[in-house]
Formats: sequence, structure tokens, C-alpha cells
Amino acid sequence: MNNELKSTKESALFVMDGVKGGHDGMNVSSKKKFRKKNQEELDLVKLANELRSGSRNSLAKAITLIESSNNQHKELAQALLQELLPYTGKSIRIGITGVPGAGKSSFIEAFGMMLCNMGKRVAVLAIDPSSSLSGGSILGDKTRMEELSRDQRAFVRPSPSAGTLGGVHKKTRETMLLCEAAGYDVILIETVGVGQSETYVRGMVDFFLLLVLTGAGDELQGMKKGIMELADGIVVHKCDGDNVRNAKRTVREYKQILHFLQPATPGWMSKALPVSSLEKVGLDEVWKMICDFEQTIKASNYWEQRRNGQTRDWYHSMITDFLIDSFFNNPEKKTQVKVIESAILQGELTVTQGVNKLFRE
Amino acid sequence: MNNELKSTKESALFVMDGVKGGHDGMNVSSKKKFRKKNQEELDLVKLANELRSGSRNSLAKAITLIESSNNQHKELAQALLQELLPYTGKSIRIGITGVPGAGKSSFIEAFGMMLCNMGKRVAVLAIDPSSSLSGGSILGDKTRMEELSRDQRAFVRPSPSAGTLGGVHKKTRETMLLCEAAGYDVILIETVGVGQSETYVRGMVDFFLLLVLTGAGDELQGMKKGIMELADGIVVHKCDGDNVRNAKRTVREYKQILHFLQPATPGWMSKALPVSSLEKVGLDEVWKMICDFEQTIKASNYWEQRRNGQTRDWYHSMITDFLIDSFFNNPEKKTQVKVIESAILQGELTVTQGVNKLFRE
Repeated sequence: MNNELKSTKESALFVMDGVKGGHDGMNVSSKKKFRKKNQEELDLVKLANELRSGSRNSLAKAITLIESSNNQHKELAQALLQELLPYTGKSIRIGITGVPGAGKSSFIEAFGMMLCNMGKRVAVLAIDPSSSLSGGSILGDKTRMEELSRDQRAFVRPSPSAGTLGGVHKKTRETMLLCEAAGYDVILIETVGVGQSETYVRGMVDFFLLLVLTGAGDELQGMKKGIMELADGIVVHKCDGDNVRNAKRTVREYKQILHFLQPATPGWMSKALPVSSLEKVGLDEVWKMICDFEQTIKASNYWEQRRNGQTRDWYHSMITDFLIDSFFNNPEKKTQVKVIESAILQGELTVTQGVNKLFRE
Repeated sequence: MNNELKSTKESALFVMDGVKGGHDGMNVSSKKKFRKKNQEELDLVKLANELRSGSRNSLAKAITLIESSNNQHKELAQALLQELLPYTGKSIRIGITGVPGAGKSSFIEAFGMMLCNMGKRVAVLAIDPSSSLSGGSILGDKTRMEELSRDQRAFVRPSPSAGTLGGVHKKTRETMLLCEAAGYDVILIETVGVGQSETYVRGMVDFFLLLVLTGAGDELQGMKKGIMELADGIVVHKCDGDNVRNAKRTVREYKQILHFLQPATPGWMSKALPVSSLEKVGLDEVWKMICDFEQTIKASNYWEQRRNGQTRDWYHSMITDFLIDSFFNNPEKKTQVKVIESAILQGELTVTQGVNKLFRE
């Protein structure tokens, strides 16, 4: 990954020389700084242009820049993203979740290939390190979207492995914007439906798809509470061979449960569909469902409204995270919080007294 | 309400005279302050003792003190609460929710009277201004627990009407502690299951009861998403007259849905029961369910663990609220947040750039 970044910084083909000579008031270090800054800006413009023209290498470099924790890289990354903002927002953003073993990789491989063959450009991102993209598959490498990864019309990127989930979801959002600027029509964001990551994904996509297996009852026991209520569509997967009958019955069961739940998207009745990625059956129905969804929700103006709301929520949650992190990561405060917490649990202080004490000291 | 408070402050029967005369270094104002402080402390001890001996008037005065927004009252309230903390925690705390019209008032009236007749002391609190306790009933005054309110073994207190919900839930928590110190065995906390209040209630009770009507499907449409997953028990209400058959079918439907959900309390399978408050049928079954629950969960040690966790969460959420409130209520910050938000939504700034700008300025 670092090599990609290094090569950007070393290849400064279009760099002008900057101010040569200069008056006496400018020392050597200032001149170097000035030249460096100029060079970086030009590199950024070049990187942005290459990315927009469809270079998968440039996209990969840009994502590496976004994921870097180096402060200088961070600033460059934000400048690049700002440059590209006008070209974002044109894809359909689809979140895909399901318990481990539901077959997310094989579904994304089959579904993504179908979309590519329909002339779409497809980007696949993962939001958590435990996703199948990043190596969660227990069946080994063969199921990890080999065909899709090699296809020139697709771009597959595993999750950033560092940082807290909150940080990862920030980076995935920004990576999604980069993919849009690079002209990808469909963004698939994979997540494992067992933690809190699916709430983050729901907060950044238009359509949220839940992959399940047959036997709704047992299956749901292992699923996170409330996850069905986030889904615009449910795919009952592995509807093939001996399993077809079972899968179709499970579809009916899910339809019944969906009837009891409020829709995840106002104006859209969530659907359940049987799919076999192995036999490539039902994939076109899933795409049809998503297109129906897009048409319906765009007609009701909720599409833009949700996206603006998502950006606003993202901004506000980043503010809140900043406030909370800078308080709780302060070592002195951390100790005080603990000491007062003990006093509260011992019944020596009321909670209100504890909080007052904390902010008075 | 203010009169209750006033009378405490005026009737200082047990107040000692304090230091008489005193040396020359103490001026008149200091003496007054000293005497006043002494007097207040003694008033508090007296109030605490009267409250603990079961005086409903003293309990009402103490709650008024807790609900007061006057800074001096706030301090007194916390001192009183600290005095009483060792006597709290001995009740069973039950949250009761349901959509408007589910019959929360008539259930609490009938259930509460049954408990009183079993020798229990019952306190009823409401967490939001729109609850039936505070006047949400569309059927008028008659349904508002007239019998229970008059019973000496019960204490019925409507919700504090002022403040945000976050503030209200803080006051309800502290009111609950006062009721426990006053010797109430069962605390019923009523809330309307349509906002976010039921999450607050779930965070302060041992057992959470959901009241529903017949026709699970239609009923659930008006209910808040995910509310069933908070419930340890579901009462299908108004199981009387022509409605008995329907209600029993609805109980079966809910049992089926509960089967799909993770239990709200680890180690407890949530139950659904038919109840008629009108004909007083099934109320004893509800109490039996709650006693079973208490026994099961205490045996698994989860009881104390949950209560400590609730106190810890309360403490942490008050810290977080304080941080967020003091940031967003700062008029200067408020304006900056808005200005930057607009720039972000216009695509002029990335979200990360916006947040950086906000905290750099």
C-alpha cells in the first residue's frame, strides 16, 4: 500500500519549477516549503484527473491516502476529496449484510458479475475487518470474488484494518465518494451483521440488503436484534439443490414477519426474494427490486432528503465523537471518571453529584 | 407544588439555635449564612426521616425539591438523596408502555389495586408529559386511577412537565429512588411507547411490560420500531366480552413473533398474556410472571449486574449530555456549526474538513 503512495510523491511529471532565485528575504527552507506545496497541489490535480478518467491505480492511491494516519497525508486526502466532491453522488449505494456463512462473498461475486455484464461499473467495499472481503471466509480464498476482482469493470477494496469502527466507517464513506468520482455506477458495501457496523452502513447507503439462510427462526437467533428493521430487501440465499423448497418456505416466513415491521424506508414495502448465487437464479430479480426502489423513492423526493440527512448526521456524529473522545482520552479526566464512578456504585454519591463534581474539578 | 416546598422551609420545629453570640471576627452575614445552613441540614434530616417513616406528604415535598430548577433547591435535593441512598434499591422496578388507547391507566389502576390488596405498597410514576397519568387519556378523568390515587398504600405522581426528555428521565430516576427510600415495594413507571422514552425506561427498570390490543399486525404498525425487543412481557389487553377470542389469538401471534426475537433479558424467555382490567382477569398471572422473572434473574446474578450497569450508563450518559449540551448551547459554536453545515451540504467542504475547521477556530 505504501508503495502506491510513494510512487505518487516521486513521480512529479507535470511539476513546474516554481519561483526561481527569489529575493533575499526568502530563506532556503521557505523556498523548499513553497516549492513542495506547489508540487503537491499539482500532484493532486493530476491524481484527481487520472482518477476521474477511470484509472484503477489512481483510485487505489487515493484510497490509500484517505486511509493514511499520517497528518500530512490526511490534509492532502481532504484536499483531493474536496477537488472531487462535485463529481460524487451519482451512484446507487447498496449495503449488504448477513451473518457469517450466509454467503455474502459468493452473492457479491455473482451479483457484481451480472451487473458488469449489463455494462455497469461496480465498486465493492467492506466496512469491517471481519468481513468476507478482508478474510472472514471460512471456505478459503476461492470464494473471495476472484472473478470480480480481476474484472476491469469492477473495483474490489477490502476494509481498512486499523482504527476503531467509528474511524473505519468514516474512511469507508470517503472511499465511497472517491469511487463515485471515479465513475462507478453501483457501490456495494459489505458488512457483517453481528455488531454495530450495520447501523453505520444503513447510515451511508440508499438500499440495505440482508442475506439470510433457510430456517428463519434459528437463523434470526444468531442475528443482531433489530437488523430486519433496517432492511429494504431480504435475500434468502442458497436456494438451490435440495434446499429450494425450504428456501421458498423461508421467503414466505420472512414476508410474514416483514408485515409486522415498519418499513426501513418510508414509502417502500420491504421485500423477500429467493436467490441462488451458485445457479445464478434470482439475481436479476434483486436488481429489478433495487431499480424499482430507486424509481419509487426518487419520485417521492425522499432520496435526496435521506442523503442530505445522512451527511448531516455524519457531520454531527463526528462533532460528538470529537467532544467525547477528547474528554475521555484525557488521562486526568479518565482517572477522575473512574474514581467518581466507584463512589457512585458504592452509594456514596448520587449520579448528579458525581457529574457536578467531575465538571467542577 | 411550591406550597409544599415552602411549608418545609417555614416549619423548622427541630432546629437548634446554632452558635449564639460568637466572636467578633464573624460578621452578621456570616452568622446568618451559618445559621441558615445549619437549619437547612436539620430540615433535610427531618424530611428524610419523615419520608422514611412513610409520610406521603414528605415524599411529595422531596419530589418537588428534586424537580425544582432553582439552584439552591437542586443542591438540597442532592443532599437529601445522598442521605437516602442507603435505603434505596429494595423495590421491584417495572416499566409499562403501550400506544395511546392501549389502556395503560386502567391496567395500572387494576393491577396496582390488586397489589395493594396483597399488602404491597405501590408507587406509580410517569416519564413523559403525554402519558395517561399526566392527562393523555381521551376518555376523561374517570379512567385516571381514581381508586389507586386515593389509596393510602399507593402513591401516584404524574410526570414533571418541564425540561427535555433527557432531563425528565433524570428526575424520574431520582424520584424512583425517593419512593424506594419511602418503603414502596413496587414501582410502576408509565411511558407512552411512541417516542424514545421507552428506551430511557428500559434503562431504569428491572422488568419491562408492553401493553397491546388485539390484531397484532395493525397494532404494531403504530408502535415504535424495536419496542417488542425491549419487552420482558406482553399483555394483550381488553381481553373481555366479545374480544376474548380475538385477544387469545393475538396472544398466540405475539408468542410466535417473540420466538423470532432475542430475549430482552438474558436468561428469560419473554411471555405474552391475555388480561382484562375491566373484569380483573389475568392480573394475578402478570404478577406471577414478574415474580418468576425476579427469582430467575436474581438466581443468575444478572439482577445486580443490570442495576449496576444501569447506574453506570446513567452516569456516562449524563457526562456525555453535559459535554454535548455545553458545546451546542454555546451561541457562538451554534452559529459556526450551522455555517459549516451549509458549506458541507453545498459540496464546498468535506465533512472532515468541516469538523477540523470547527475545532480549529
